[in-house]
Amino acid sequence: MVPRYARPAMTAIWEPEARYRIWFEIEAHATEKLGELGVVPQSAAKALWDWWATNPKIDVPAIDAIEAVTKHDVIAFLTWVAEQVGEEARFMHQGMTSSDVLDTTLAVQLARASDILLEDLDLLLAAIKRRAEEHKYTPTIGRSHGIHAEPVTFGLKLAQAYAEFARCRQRLVNARAEIATCAISGAVGTFANVNPQVEAHVAERLGLAIEPVSTQVIPRDRHAMFFATLAVIAGSIERVAVEIRHLQRTEVLEAEEYFSPGQKGSSAMPHKRNPILTENLTGQARMIRAYALPALENVALWHERDISHSSVERFIGPDATITLDFALARLTGVIDKLLVYPERMQKNLDRMGGLVHSQRVLLALTQAGVSREDAYRLVQRNAMKVWESDGALSLLDLLKADPEVTAALSDAELEERFDLDYHFKEVDTIFERVFG
Amino acid sequence: MVPRYARPAMTAIWEPEARYRIWFEIEAHATEKLGELGVVPQSAAKALWDWWATNPKIDVPAIDAIEAVTKHDVIAFLTWVAEQVGEEARFMHQGMTSSDVLDTTLAVQLARASDILLEDLDLLLAAIKRRAEEHKYTPTIGRSHGIHAEPVTFGLKLAQAYAEFARCRQRLVNARAEIATCAISGAVGTFANVNPQVEAHVAERLGLAIEPVSTQVIPRDRHAMFFATLAVIAGSIERVAVEIRHLQRTEVLEAEEYFSPGQKGSSAMPHKRNPILTENLTGQARMIRAYALPALENVALWHERDISHSSVERFIGPDATITLDFALARLTGVIDKLLVYPERMQKNLDRMGGLVHSQRVLLALTQAGVSREDAYRLVQRNAMKVWESDGALSLLDLLKADPEVTAALSDAELEERFDLDYHFKEVDTIFERVFG
Amino acid sequence: MVPRYARPAMTAIWEPEARYRIWFEIEAHATEKLGELGVVPQSAAKALWDWWATNPKIDVPAIDAIEAVTKHDVIAFLTWVAEQVGEEARFMHQGMTSSDVLDTTLAVQLARASDILLEDLDLLLAAIKRRAEEHKYTPTIGRSHGIHAEPVTFGLKLAQAYAEFARCRQRLVNARAEIATCAISGAVGTFANVNPQVEAHVAERLGLAIEPVSTQVIPRDRHAMFFATLAVIAGSIERVAVEIRHLQRTEVLEAEEYFSPGQKGSSAMPHKRNPILTENLTGQARMIRAYALPALENVALWHERDISHSSVERFIGPDATITLDFALARLTGVIDKLLVYPERMQKNLDRMGGLVHSQRVLLALTQAGVSREDAYRLVQRNAMKVWESDGALSLLDLLKADPEVTAALSDAELEERFDLDYHFKEVDTIFERVFG
Amino acid sequence: MVPRYARPAMTAIWEPEARYRIWFEIEAHATEKLGELGVVPQSAAKALWDWWATNPKIDVPAIDAIEAVTKHDVIAFLTWVAEQVGEEARFMHQGMTSSDVLDTTLAVQLARASDILLEDLDLLLAAIKRRAEEHKYTPTIGRSHGIHAEPVTFGLKLAQAYAEFARCRQRLVNARAEIATCAISGAVGTFANVNPQVEAHVAERLGLAIEPVSTQVIPRDRHAMFFATLAVIAGSIERVAVEIRHLQRTEVLEAEEYFSPGQKGSSAMPHKRNPILTENLTGQARMIRAYALPALENVALWHERDISHSSVERFIGPDATITLDFALARLTGVIDKLLVYPERMQKNLDRMGGLVHSQRVLLALTQAGVSREDAYRLVQRNAMKVWESDGALSLLDLLKADPEVTAALSDAELEERFDLDYHFKEVDTIFERVFG
Repeated sequence: MVPRYARPAMTAIWEPEARYRIWFEIEAHATEKLGELGVVPQSAAKALWDWWATNPKIDVPAIDAIEAVTKHDVIAFLTWVAEQVGEEARFMHQGMTSSDVLDTTLAVQLARASDILLEDLDLLLAAIKRRAEEHKYTPTIGRSHGIHAEPVTFGLKLAQAYAEFARCRQRLVNARAEIATCAISGAVGTFANVNPQVEAHVAERLGLAIEPVSTQVIPRDRHAMFFATLAVIAGSIERVAVEIRHLQRTEVLEAEEYFSPGQKGSSAMPHKRNPILTENLTGQARMIRAYALPALENVALWHERDISHSSVERFIGPDATITLDFALARLTGVIDKLLVYPERMQKNLDRMGGLVHSQRVLLALTQAGVSREDAYRLVQRNAMKVWESDGALSLLDLLKADPEVTAALSDAELEERFDLDYHFKEVDTIFERVFG
Repeated sequence: MVPRYARPAMTAIWEPEARYRIWFEIEAHATEKLGELGVVPQSAAKALWDWWATNPKIDVPAIDAIEAVTKHDVIAFLTWVAEQVGEEARFMHQGMTSSDVLDTTLAVQLARASDILLEDLDLLLAAIKRRAEEHKYTPTIGRSHGIHAEPVTFGLKLAQAYAEFARCRQRLVNARAEIATCAISGAVGTFANVNPQVEAHVAERLGLAIEPVSTQVIPRDRHAMFFATLAVIAGSIERVAVEIRHLQRTEVLEAEEYFSPGQKGSSAMPHKRNPILTENLTGQARMIRAYALPALENVALWHERDISHSSVERFIGPDATITLDFALARLTGVIDKLLVYPERMQKNLDRMGGLVHSQRVLLALTQAGVSREDAYRLVQRNAMKVWESDGALSLLDLLKADPEVTAALSDAELEERFDLDYHFKEVDTIFERVFG
Repeated sequence: MVPRYARPAMTAIWEPEARYRIWFEIEAHATEKLGELGVVPQSAAKALWDWWATNPKIDVPAIDAIEAVTKHDVIAFLTWVAEQVGEEARFMHQGMTSSDVLDTTLAVQLARASDILLEDLDLLLAAIKRRAEEHKYTPTIGRSHGIHAEPVTFGLKLAQAYAEFARCRQRLVNARAEIATCAISGAVGTFANVNPQVEAHVAERLGLAIEPVSTQVIPRDRHAMFFATLAVIAGSIERVAVEIRHLQRTEVLEAEEYFSPGQKGSSAMPHKRNPILTENLTGQARMIRAYALPALENVALWHERDISHSSVERFIGPDATITLDFALARLTGVIDKLLVYPERMQKNLDRMGGLVHSQRVLLALTQAGVSREDAYRLVQRNAMKVWESDGALSLLDLLKADPEVTAALSDAELEERFDLDYHFKEVDTIFERVFG
Repeated sequence: MVPRYARPAMTAIWEPEARYRIWFEIEAHATEKLGELGVVPQSAAKALWDWWATNPKIDVPAIDAIEAVTKHDVIAFLTWVAEQVGEEARFMHQGMTSSDVLDTTLAVQLARASDILLEDLDLLLAAIKRRAEEHKYTPTIGRSHGIHAEPVTFGLKLAQAYAEFARCRQRLVNARAEIATCAISGAVGTFANVNPQVEAHVAERLGLAIEPVSTQVIPRDRHAMFFATLAVIAGSIERVAVEIRHLQRTEVLEAEEYFSPGQKGSSAMPHKRNPILTENLTGQARMIRAYALPALENVALWHERDISHSSVERFIGPDATITLDFALARLTGVIDKLLVYPERMQKNLDRMGGLVHSQRVLLALTQAGVSREDAYRLVQRNAMKVWESDGALSLLDLLKADPEVTAALSDAELEERFDLDYHFKEVDTIFERVFG
């Protein structure tokens, strides 16, 4: 976790105190059910909740000190709670194993993290939608291979981003469902010493599903899927970030990250205004992708479990979610305040002497009876001249002067093919598909 | 693709001829709709389908020869088809762009590959279920950290695998839905020169959804999600493979891969019977995981598209699906014919002098009023003696001889805690959860 | 391996016949030494080499057929050779284990692959050097963050690439040394049944170092380092590929991949000339990077060895080396024939109204006694006007009209700071450092 | 960075204050040389060093507060230093760009981190060597595929680890050399505004090499190679960790991590002693491997530089080095205190009824004139009986009773092949190779 790429709400989920609070709740809910089942005195849960109602501070250093001796974090915590609550606390954790607490806690943390990320995505989607509608009909050149292709609108670019993040949102909903399970099944997951009703009770209280079959641990294919999903979302962030970086290039300059008063682009070159936020997002995306890998390697735990996943999750649990939260929020800010330059878009669109209309001429020639191969040759030979003139020549003029072309198409028919609006006639259709 | 890790049905999907056949179908379906819309003569589609009805052989080398000149695969193919079909073929591809064909084809291929993989998973699930039921009550030691923990049944181990692959199946269903979209939207995806109805028609004929907004290409977040999903499935294969490799270790030998007559385990050591199939699966899982990475990097194409994804997909499209198909089938075979040794399982279970029952004694002591800390200390001090005797001493005997223990529990109460069946009382519950 | 991304010399290394030929040589060299040591009759090696001298064809299908029964590739091969050579062949492989043959063979293959890759790098370095010298003083704008920064020369860009690939070459030399070891140490690597002199003899004949301590297999940290090195080289390929893709963007167009007669850029848009070779290289780089991952996971084999690395290496051995060979050759071709447009470079350099000289003015102001903060402010306020005019305004003119600026610097002093050649005065120094 | 996996010396390198101290030194050394060259007054460096001699505290929050306005870290730092030093400070950073400071600082940090890691490796190598000598002749079973193969010594296992980490050490020496370069070349790396002598001076003072050609930034192929090298070292850590985890398995129990008084293996099962340190190392290795990936993706920066690498390096700079430092130290502790059980090793070695000697019998039969195929068959048929008896039968006894065997070998000749020491006759040779 890098503090400058962390926001408080997400960070709070991963702080020791937050984790201990979830531990307590799991233990107390479980003790409650154990009391109902007559396994432990009902007074035990009461004692725990009574103490909890005093809103006690979790003394993290004290727990750490106990762990330094026991070398076991859950035992350290239970010991500390027992010191606070007294006698009745000895009924806690009856028949349970540490993994019941740890894995269910991680489920709660990842579910909470998912909820924040879903909110982030909603804000991002809203920002994209707003800007998409604003620029629904702002003409701009579409580029394939970085080369001018045909006209699109800036709104279409944003609609694409919207559809992509809407898919990401659905993936995260699925990933959250994968991860939000509760396992209270005791050592090696047999429920030998803990009634399955305890699990059902804790699950219900914490808003989790029960884990159908656990082997002491919640199976790590769930976590692999979760972190792989975050990696895919990171890819989509990178795509939009790279798009904006391209648009801000000096020669293109169709859009720019907002540049605040007092900001300095370069210590050496006062004229610089750099797309640093989206460059930064590009790097963060690389990290979030990288975190999926150890999660995938964690799946193959030995037998009923080993603990190699644990050190991995101490890193990626916080790092992947905190960084993704930050990145989504940063991207939302970038989109929200993005400086868009429609005039420059038009200027770029016009700079190739009408080459962007070459396909329409090709089609018109074909429909006028010219073979596809001949039509391609006719258009290409004129297009190449425009290309080589760097847009100084006009494709329309050249075509009008090419007798093989004019043999098939009149001037008026040619001119009709150079109409920009023609390209936007299905923008409504696409917006309808994307935004409903 | 490594031929020895490839099966014919999956490989066939990726052969050039198969790809060209899908290309043709897309073009012909599109031409059909273009005919209905009056954009091209209706005779065009008829000419195409008539030729197709003759079941023509696709001349791959001829198409390759054309591509060597044009350096463009789709143009090469269209040229070749035109040579076969004649005049009418010039109406093909009207308003479309290569990506319309290529991306929709990849969608068809990945959807077909998914169908095979889903069948593979069904066969694997069936094999696991059969063996799980066979060994529902076969006692075996559960191990955490590779160390004996408490008893489980071999059926439970398999139930866990079943639940995991059932999740994998659902993930693949989701991934298939992600990938099975059709884009016929023309250059930069605006439908400027191709009516959206063409897309809808082709999609319907090929069993695909329409792509709501494409930027000439189908967005690569879909593919990233697809290959990430295969990577997760690979992780689950690895988990089961590693489990079997552990079980076959000389000192454990609770299960073994089937060893066929004539097979030689080692060129140097005639006594060897090695778990080579599951070791092999472990390596294949590493590959399938690796293929997800470039798919994730492919998401951030430039602007409306660049073609950097293409070389990646020429590798991972076939390699990931063919290898996963092979791995799933191999794992099914391993499970199906797995030699299971219940006697050895029992022997291993018994070898630690009853240590596996330590927790039940701990709980009994607590319930008899001993503090948790004291109970832990009492059990641990006896358990450590058994441990150090390598199972020669019996925990039950030692406990019976420990006055601090017997002050809380009678001999009968102690003996009751060493009952194996106690651990299996919820096996039915778990099987019900998993197999329904 | 994707045939279109494969060249014959590298592919040949990985063909079954090539592998079997190396197997034979290892066995024959070993038998030779065993004969000298009196372990086997000296006639055995003679029989083997006599047969070999007949230049026999390796009957791959026949060996495959034997393997189908034995399920062991080395035994299958030995059996087939015995069928060809007769009685004396039974002395082959005495005291050896399959891994002795397989791992030493892989070492030979990777060493040979490295030799081809080193040649590829030499050709690439030569091409870069030639173009660097050609454009040593061709002015072009340097860009940080995609934004115009200050002038560089196109030769400097290429010098950077040269230095980077020279480092890559040294890394590959190191990686080759890592991998080129011979292990003939018998089962579990103890030399119990094979004299270490056999290993030394085979190593010397094959141009390998001896493996100081093997555990039946050559340790896989060596291979991990090798494939990680290829991944780094791939990163450098990607860097140059991305640079060229940027330079070919329509708005930039300072360089272009060679576009051959007859080539078609787009099936739909006849005007397109796309940087498809470098896009293609970008994708290939992703693959080569991905192959390093399973190599890293292969290191942790179990005990004296398991065979999980084997399936991985059947993929990445050929795929990583063949693809890298292809990519290096392709990049060499791209550099060699790259169309460079110095006029367009100059035009782009000029388009920002002299903003690229802002730093020099800043420094001049500071040296004239203005505080750094004030100097920055003065330059920035004029630079921003130029920026907003899209280069229509001239920074020099604005500065001359700014009384706070002219209070510190005369017109002549200002003009002096707008000299392009000033930026190139150390080009010689840098070329000397890079090319010697 | 996870605090529990961090040690102070390595962590200190990455703290903001440490970074700022290096920044200052670079700026002051550079100003010194600029003074000598007459670019700035010589008094400037004097003022800086005089202030530095007062051992001033770096006020990190104050610098952060300035950065919050300027959004530029180096400018914020320079501003703060100017506030402390006064007037003369304005000459700092003359002709330099932020990257000169940032990249050279990272070089210093990674070089220092490397020095710690090299010390870590030396301590690890010393620990391995000590235990290797201690167990040079401790017999233990060698295992391939997890299956008993032939005898080795525990010292040989450790010699293998020693050789592997000795290679890792050399790789790290190479990686350190890759990374320890200094670039003070100004905007876009042309030295236009800063004399190359400044770079040479700073490099010499900081113990770095000069960067032959930089493009404002130090090229990221160097960093990719560095982090890839750490990833390979992580693989070797994982290998040894997995070995120990295997050895500690209940059924194997040939070695154990030290179990300290007061330690609790399981909250639920008091009998557990788990290899948690090596499991933990396994997870850490996964992380260190993962960090290499974004470093590889960082290579392809745009043009003369973009800043996408920066966010990545804020994570992996500290995380990879801190975690690797911790892991190496932890592994050293594990090796140092590893509980080794030679009796159990012997017991395991004996448990297969002499099967481990099968190869020697095979060779003896061959040498006695039996064909290789027949010899294999004869040994295998007896070996399989022993195998199926789970070691209750003795291979030697069975062979003596097999007339086809005894036709070739006498009882005495057979017995001679069951001598354990035979396997260790080259241990000296191997130790000599490894330890010199």
